[in-house]
Amino acid sequence: MKLGAIEAGGTKFVCAVGNDKGEIFERMKVDTDHPDKTIPAVIEFFKTHQVDSLGIASFGPVDVDKDSPTYGNITSTPKPGWKDYPFISHFENELNIPVGFTTDVNGAALGELTYGAAKGLDGCLYITVGTGIGAGAISNHQLVQGFSHPEMGHILVRRHPEDHYEGHCPFHKDCLEGLAAGPAIEARWGKKGHLLTDHALAWEIEADYLAQALMQYILILAPKRIIMGGGVMKQERLFPLIREKVKDLLNGYVVFPQVAEQIDDYIVPPGLGDNAGITGALILAKEAFKSVKVK
Amino acid sequence: MKLGAIEAGGTKFVCAVGNDKGEIFERMKVDTDHPDKTIPAVIEFFKTHQVDSLGIASFGPVDVDKDSPTYGNITSTPKPGWKDYPFISHFENELNIPVGFTTDVNGAALGELTYGAAKGLDGCLYITVGTGIGAGAISNHQLVQGFSHPEMGHILVRRHPEDHYEGHCPFHKDCLEGLAAGPAIEARWGKKGHLLTDHALAWEIEADYLAQALMQYILILAPKRIIMGGGVMKQERLFPLIREKVKDLLNGYVVFPQVAEQIDDYIVPPGLGDNAGITGALILAKEAFKSVKVK
Repeated sequence: MKLGAIEAGGTKFVCAVGNDKGEIFERMKVDTDHPDKTIPAVIEFFKTHQVDSLGIASFGPVDVDKDSPTYGNITSTPKPGWKDYPFISHFENELNIPVGFTTDVNGAALGELTYGAAKGLDGCLYITVGTGIGAGAISNHQLVQGFSHPEMGHILVRRHPEDHYEGHCPFHKDCLEGLAAGPAIEARWGKKGHLLTDHALAWEIEADYLAQALMQYILILAPKRIIMGGGVMKQERLFPLIREKVKDLLNGYVVFPQVAEQIDDYIVPPGLGDNAGITGALILAKEAFKSVKVK
Repeated sequence: MKLGAIEAGGTKFVCAVGNDKGEIFERMKVDTDHPDKTIPAVIEFFKTHQVDSLGIASFGPVDVDKDSPTYGNITSTPKPGWKDYPFISHFENELNIPVGFTTDVNGAALGELTYGAAKGLDGCLYITVGTGIGAGAISNHQLVQGFSHPEMGHILVRRHPEDHYEGHCPFHKDCLEGLAAGPAIEARWGKKGHLLTDHALAWEIEADYLAQALMQYILILAPKRIIMGGGVMKQERLFPLIREKVKDLLNGYVVFPQVAEQIDDYIVPPGLGDNAGITGALILAKEAFKSVKVK
């Protein structure tokens, strides 16, 4: 079985060919340009490699409701050409193979659960902190979703008393993403995160917002492990700061002793590094292959 | 098939006998005293009615992990006699029938999904606002849980600018439950909620906290419907206030148009009134009956 995988990001598409053990044999990157430019290169790659099925973990928002007439489409996005782009149907028609589909963060959660930092568990939460903030959750082997996939990056947080940055989310201004995504760090301090390594207050504030978010996720989902990826999380000093603050916020709340006692194993970086999303897409391809329906 | 159901609350146990259509034929209430007093009366009731299986929707925290050696126990509670009380094993041994078990709010969510305000959907969220605040969520027909059931009542909210009450949660002080449960209303205004009917600011503040909580739940779970029950929600003026504030907070966030456009059908009171929990317990009994294992 030869499986195709796409991690469709806002700046680049990562395409891969692999197998049902999560191993990747071929890999190709292409910029996320107008779909008329990007998609033909992607189709060409998978035609060359003659994959049996395809999995796509995509930037969003996307329609993940299998009963919806627009299932598998990008929905609203300001990216030229991508609004309402019909991901699944386009690839199904061009390649004539089954296509699995979910969000980029759901894909990463799936990858980490199967082969990465949450291997052996029946659920986890994956959060990416980069240009935006998003998270996907798996509970009892199932992706958590309702009328849509979650949009966990936009939850409310309490403002840090020393933070005077107004926030940049066009919808909620100072929601989590508006205060803690990469562009917020840059706007607050006038420098990108990787140039702020020695700036203690910058990471104190960042860790405070992310810890608040984790507290909400823990209380609402009780995820068995939390995996934090994305560009901002490359600042490894964030992990101990966040763990400490999560413990402080939960304050020994009785029902979660495992969080407090094993927090170093509970809030962790991705086991698959930057391969979480593409590996998740491979798993989607495997599932799509197994559930083939004649159309 | 004769099914037994218990809604085990902090102040009373509601016991019922019903069928697999959610119909209730017999009902009995007993105060939640020390288990040595309460449980024998409950056992007697179900022995008399010779039920084939039993479902329990219990106050918490409880151990809902089927792989845990203490599955089906109350865990920590200040209630005399109830700490580590082995709910499932005690009833299995006494009645020699299969026993299903979950939290009170999970039970209510199950009841509402099957026969109530979320009938026909594959998931919903049920939140109770009373002496405490708790919520249960179902996604794709499955209860959402991880290393434990959720504890959604303890999430963080932003303080209302006109609220000077410090909050009463022993763990987090001014978390949602600390600021918005019934005892917080009474402590803030010196009167119980039902005596504050004309106090506009009291309900403005209450609606603000509850709307913030719903925003978090919506962004993290995207529940297909939100059902609000419990004593505080008997103040029906809260519903329009909360709906309006949830719309304001989400601020037209693009991926959730259905919330904004159909909010009157989205945030609703329980379709089963005060019977949501006991009906959920009946459904647990039905499921336990179907999955009987020889012990």
